[in-house]
Amino acid sequence: MQPQIDAADSVRRWDDVKVEQIAEGIERQMIVGEKLMVCRLRFRPHVVTAVHSHPHEQLTLVEKGRVRFTIGGSERIVAPGDVLHFAPDVPHGATMLDEEVVLIDIFTPLREEFLPAR
Amino acid sequence: MQPQIDAADSVRRWDDVKVEQIAEGIERQMIVGEKLMVCRLRFRPHVVTAVHSHPHEQLTLVEKGRVRFTIGGSERIVAPGDVLHFAPDVPHGATMLDEEVVLIDIFTPLREEFLPAR
Repeated sequence: MQPQIDAADSVRRWDDVKVEQIAEGIERQMIVGEKLMVCRLRFRPHVVTAVHSHPHEQLTLVEKGRVRFTIGGSERIVAPGDVLHFAPDVPHGATMLDEEVVLIDIFTPLREEFLPAR
Repeated sequence: MQPQIDAADSVRRWDDVKVEQIAEGIERQMIVGEKLMVCRLRFRPHVVTAVHSHPHEQLTLVEKGRVRFTIGGSERIVAPGDVLHFAPDVPHGATMLDEEVVLIDIFTPLREEFLPAR
């Protein structure tokens, strides 16, 4: 038998999702599934995120602002409408240019280290 | 040694991604990773997608327009800024209301049936 699903439980609004300040000039919201999660990140202009890597696969949608990405040793400036794909373990970092930036980061599996201790 | 990654290979623009008409009034674009894929779907007003389910986990971002979703037997109207989560095998269907709709569907694993035969 199909388990009972209430549509209301399946829908979230970004406006109602808790905003965490995770570093100076960086705010993060998260919607977490089973093996899929989406993070909405808001960055102040000129914020730099250090080059890092993780075993999780990542897609990033650029919603607002221009960003210089370093990806595996080369660079690329991205803008709204661009989509980035990071295979597992590919090093990447970002430098926000001169405006506020909003990125949608999608991961599989979950970034467990982002979640509250359970 | 880290494999050589060219940043340009990691970035796509929606404007440059092939648009497929998959049904009357439905256009789909896809960006495909290893276990993660994102589909941008554009629907004409009033298009209905039948209730269906799949073993893939899904997140849907509402980018444009209002949609009445049926999810596991109940209904909910969503709008831009809403995010839907469908656990594996949860039945869902959508009725576009009176304007064009753009949805971003994210899946893990890949919807192999969407891909060209390989």
